[in-house]
Amino acid sequence: MSVNADLQKERAAATLDSEDFARWWAGGSSQLEERRALDRRFYDDPDFVEPVHPSCLSYKERYEQTIARSTRFLAKLRQWQREKQPQLDLSVNMLRDFRLLLSGSLGTGLFQQSFPLRVHFSMFMTTLLSQGTEEQQAQWLNRSWHMDGVLGTYAQTELGHGTFVRGLETRADYDPERQEFVLNTPTQSSYKWWPGGLGNTANVAIVLAQLYVKGKHYGLQSFLVRIRDESTHEPLTGVDVGDIGPRLGGNGVNNGFLGLHDVRIPRTQMLMKNAQVLADGTFVQGRPPLLLYGTMVYVRVITLKDVLFGLLQAATIATRYSVVRRQSRIDGDQPEVSILDHVTQQAKILPQIARGVSYRLVSEWLWRFYEQVLRQLEDEGRGGVNSLPELHALSCCLKAVATDEASQGVDILRKSCGGHGFLSSANFDSIYGLTAAAYTYEGEYTVLLLQTARFLIRQYVESLKRKVLPYSVSYLRDTSRLVWGKNLTANCVRALEISAMEQVRHAWQTQKTHQSKASAEMASNLSGRQLSSCAVAHAHAFFTRNALDELESLRKQGALSPDVSLILGQLVELFVFDTFLRQSGCVLRWNNGINGTQLRFVERRYEELLAKLRPNAVALVDGFDFHDRVLGSTLGCYDGRVYERLMEEARRNPVNQEPVNSSFHKHLLPMMRGKL
Amino acid sequence: MSVNADLQKERAAATLDSEDFARWWAGGSSQLEERRALDRRFYDDPDFVEPVHPSCLSYKERYEQTIARSTRFLAKLRQWQREKQPQLDLSVNMLRDFRLLLSGSLGTGLFQQSFPLRVHFSMFMTTLLSQGTEEQQAQWLNRSWHMDGVLGTYAQTELGHGTFVRGLETRADYDPERQEFVLNTPTQSSYKWWPGGLGNTANVAIVLAQLYVKGKHYGLQSFLVRIRDESTHEPLTGVDVGDIGPRLGGNGVNNGFLGLHDVRIPRTQMLMKNAQVLADGTFVQGRPPLLLYGTMVYVRVITLKDVLFGLLQAATIATRYSVVRRQSRIDGDQPEVSILDHVTQQAKILPQIARGVSYRLVSEWLWRFYEQVLRQLEDEGRGGVNSLPELHALSCCLKAVATDEASQGVDILRKSCGGHGFLSSANFDSIYGLTAAAYTYEGEYTVLLLQTARFLIRQYVESLKRKVLPYSVSYLRDTSRLVWGKNLTANCVRALEISAMEQVRHAWQTQKTHQSKASAEMASNLSGRQLSSCAVAHAHAFFTRNALDELESLRKQGALSPDVSLILGQLVELFVFDTFLRQSGCVLRWNNGINGTQLRFVERRYEELLAKLRPNAVALVDGFDFHDRVLGSTLGCYDGRVYERLMEEARRNPVNQEPVNSSFHKHLLPMMRGKL
Repeated sequence: MSVNADLQKERAAATLDSEDFARWWAGGSSQLEERRALDRRFYDDPDFVEPVHPSCLSYKERYEQTIARSTRFLAKLRQWQREKQPQLDLSVNMLRDFRLLLSGSLGTGLFQQSFPLRVHFSMFMTTLLSQGTEEQQAQWLNRSWHMDGVLGTYAQTELGHGTFVRGLETRADYDPERQEFVLNTPTQSSYKWWPGGLGNTANVAIVLAQLYVKGKHYGLQSFLVRIRDESTHEPLTGVDVGDIGPRLGGNGVNNGFLGLHDVRIPRTQMLMKNAQVLADGTFVQGRPPLLLYGTMVYVRVITLKDVLFGLLQAATIATRYSVVRRQSRIDGDQPEVSILDHVTQQAKILPQIARGVSYRLVSEWLWRFYEQVLRQLEDEGRGGVNSLPELHALSCCLKAVATDEASQGVDILRKSCGGHGFLSSANFDSIYGLTAAAYTYEGEYTVLLLQTARFLIRQYVESLKRKVLPYSVSYLRDTSRLVWGKNLTANCVRALEISAMEQVRHAWQTQKTHQSKASAEMASNLSGRQLSSCAVAHAHAFFTRNALDELESLRKQGALSPDVSLILGQLVELFVFDTFLRQSGCVLRWNNGINGTQLRFVERRYEELLAKLRPNAVALVDGFDFHDRVLGSTLGCYDGRVYERLMEEARRNPVNQEPVNSSFHKHLLPMMRGKL
Repeated sequence: MSVNADLQKERAAATLDSEDFARWWAGGSSQLEERRALDRRFYDDPDFVEPVHPSCLSYKERYEQTIARSTRFLAKLRQWQREKQPQLDLSVNMLRDFRLLLSGSLGTGLFQQSFPLRVHFSMFMTTLLSQGTEEQQAQWLNRSWHMDGVLGTYAQTELGHGTFVRGLETRADYDPERQEFVLNTPTQSSYKWWPGGLGNTANVAIVLAQLYVKGKHYGLQSFLVRIRDESTHEPLTGVDVGDIGPRLGGNGVNNGFLGLHDVRIPRTQMLMKNAQVLADGTFVQGRPPLLLYGTMVYVRVITLKDVLFGLLQAATIATRYSVVRRQSRIDGDQPEVSILDHVTQQAKILPQIARGVSYRLVSEWLWRFYEQVLRQLEDEGRGGVNSLPELHALSCCLKAVATDEASQGVDILRKSCGGHGFLSSANFDSIYGLTAAAYTYEGEYTVLLLQTARFLIRQYVESLKRKVLPYSVSYLRDTSRLVWGKNLTANCVRALEISAMEQVRHAWQTQKTHQSKASAEMASNLSGRQLSSCAVAHAHAFFTRNALDELESLRKQGALSPDVSLILGQLVELFVFDTFLRQSGCVLRWNNGINGTQLRFVERRYEELLAKLRPNAVALVDGFDFHDRVLGSTLGCYDGRVYERLMEEARRNPVNQEPVNSSFHKHLLPMMRGKL
């Protein structure tokens, strides 16, 4: 198939070798080759071709097609895994690798809006592993892995309760006589709501409920509840279950609701690794779950990776389209130019690429930090681990700010493609839906920021006592003023740090002022704007500082080819400048030493970087090596046949399969004849 | 039906009388009553109940249901109009009133994603009126009004050409022998793409094409082209027509594509009011269309009204939901609070209401300005009208900035509703889709800003020559520095004006610098960031200044009750502060007189306003008087039965109509038994 001539020219003229970049981006040659082999195996398989674009299907049809595809996919993926690694050890790490396959590039390529069985391998099996006793694992784990009669989901959030977990209403009352728990969702607002796969797919749910024994409350516990019959799939007695309906994104997930009315389960189906109810009803509190924090952090690190993936999908589509699309003349009677030649267009696209790549560097660091804390936890227990609050606080604000900026970025990229970006066949809507969902799930934006702010204020108070602070907040102790030196990126990062420090101080003072007139809680509420702002500022300071540090360390390790090192340098620099300029309100407010002069330096350098990156833009996005199926976009394919694909996709639409739609004779003709 | 208790309390405690506000908002008692009567007539009509939520339908089903509903709607609406006004004069104004019915509150309530026949009454009939000769109007207009065999659309944009109109490729060659035009879309990229209703509905299109007579090019002209047979609706020979497929929003529009291959039309079907082709092929250029600018401006004013409507729909939903939703405790052992009691939540919602209301004030002014220019045009011709460039430039940047801020606002409001805001049944996705579309259609954001910037720079250069400048840019001459006085809003507006003036100057200087090394066009390209920034700054300065002026003038006219005057004052003030704080980067950069001290004053007052507005939030959104059907949201209904409606909507979903989906036996069971 011929490639668009403008794209060919771009590729021929680039100085960056996209294969070189691709190897580094994939983590090495073998990782790149393995992924490509997997791509070929699945994307060339006729079982996974979609005859109709999913956006044309009804919600029910979409569910049915997703189930057909996901069952075939899981069967073939496990076949592949058996070939690769015949002896499987059913461990946390193995499960993690498998999940990465489901949710990474391959999962995205086959299921642009995700699929219902993913949560079985993520939350359901993870919880079994972390909260089940050995006996429970022996009974459930192997069957779950083989999906032998078990299709699981994880039901925590309720219609009326999300963030404030203590407010959950679902209850489990222990009946010592029959040695059973009786589960109930006593109100409308206590119906479980949101669990993935719950709607029509799962037959077992891990249900979070308030435990009561003899009327006494023992807090939230997890219960394994069979909700549908293993053979007939009929909902069991007392179970009221269904799908919660279409959403802005992730429409393949089959999110469901669940009402429980006197549903009984055996005592052995409370997950009892951390707390037990004995046969007679005695409640035994074990040690609190050490890794609970760990799991939350893990999810946030993964979310950071997910959203930068989405951002770079969108950036790849927009970059290629912006070369193919020609619009308006710049010079005299020359033909219309590629829109990427407009500086305003470069300023929409290139900073998003820089952001995605910089997030990638930070996410690698965060992952190592997470693993290090995890090892400490395993070795020394909670007592020996000072880094846990830091890790927690950092993962909160990085997840919040990254999901916010990435979803805004996807939107900017969509808009940069004009009207065509608005079409579902361009796929920005799916990418946006998933990225935007991450803003809320696993910790809502503002809630996470307020958690980070609490940590920052504690650390700031420590700094006033001259205590040594952890790495990520050590700048809070540095009260020196900004010295604007020759190194522009260093200046910018330092200015962002000062701005963050001053905002932490400001939030602390605001809170103190309010405390003189109100309770501590009310004072925190009244300082909500200042608290969340300081957490955002901290995230910006950390993202820029850490991306620079990581780049430096990769260079020192000799991990980068000269080409990759050069372009990464440009991208991280652009990211720093872009962050600095976007935060100029805070930077100017909190740094006496900065005014328009410094901003102009940065802007000039920012525009120079746009010009430097412009010729390598296509080679760079080629280097992310997204398969066309992963992009899923008429505008972003490798061959740049944009207009052809737009037309092909339109012609495939079922509404175009008959020259005259039935509604003409039923409605339009009678109306035109005045018969209505 | 019982109303949620928390909402009841809010209403009882409000100091604002929402009926009082509603009367003012609607433009008077009689307007309010007429709208409510119309609401009752249509929303109580069983013909317009939707048995299935449109988000659950397939694209094709959705089209068919929309046609069924829109034909019934048009028939009944015209019946109503006949009752109201038996003698109809088919004029521009009458058509405008009818269109307002179709696209305003009623049209939204019945068609959340719009509908295909709207473009017949808007672009199609408007163009007939403005570009058709009297004979052409006699032949086509009455039939069009009665949809007697004529269902029209307007086909300008092509697959490969949008903004740059001169680049359109569709051509019309005159054949003097047969006195016909021969229309062709000679390439893939010249296919018409986007026209509303074109897909499966329209049978006549006004096609914009490059006119050629005997090989000579005479620019773009408009042609009436029948594309489908009047009785059978089959596409005519040489016509390739269909729907372009699903989109982020406005999925009821039936946007289509159109290829023309040697399609012949009689000479009389070129719209010849402004230019003629005589029978022998002689081309006669008439006077250029005076009102063309006017139409473009008209559309932008309407767009401003449309997006503030969407923003306030979203704000109403979010406000009511935020009272009903309880989450987290503020004080000790008290129950969880309404999330609207969190200051962070108030800061998400109340400024959006303030923005929508302030836009409303500005849109009224802009409308009057538009009408005034139009009258001048009619009275004196183009020569007498100095205000045309100002009106054009102003409408460009106001449309661009308003659509950007409103779509961001809708997104913030959606996110303020957490996970539930993500559900299609909450309706934020539809509202966002329509608002976001406006960012691009009828003038793309950046393109419009650059047009305004050109005007601003011209005016700035005039100011250097001490010329008097028009009202909206008169501040460009005022070089006095900011004096921070007692009136905070006046300070903020003046600071925004200075910031805008300095940015215009900066853009002008940047352009001049580049001009020393590049062509004028390339210099403009290289100054693209500065140019678009100054246009944004101008829009902010104008929006705030004009909203304050309008409020003042309404007060002077005695047009406001004390209640309405008070709350409008608070809202406009909040809008000014919010704009100022969001633009703090520019404000600090370009105003020497402002630093953190002034920002703190503004922030304190901003938070005081949140606290003042909080108790009236529900009464205020009640005063917008959106019918529940117009909101179309499970979260936003007047009665606040949020959880009940979420469940009801979920239970209606076709995927929940059978306890076991067919895919279980086909796919899940075989997989669980290892048979895949």
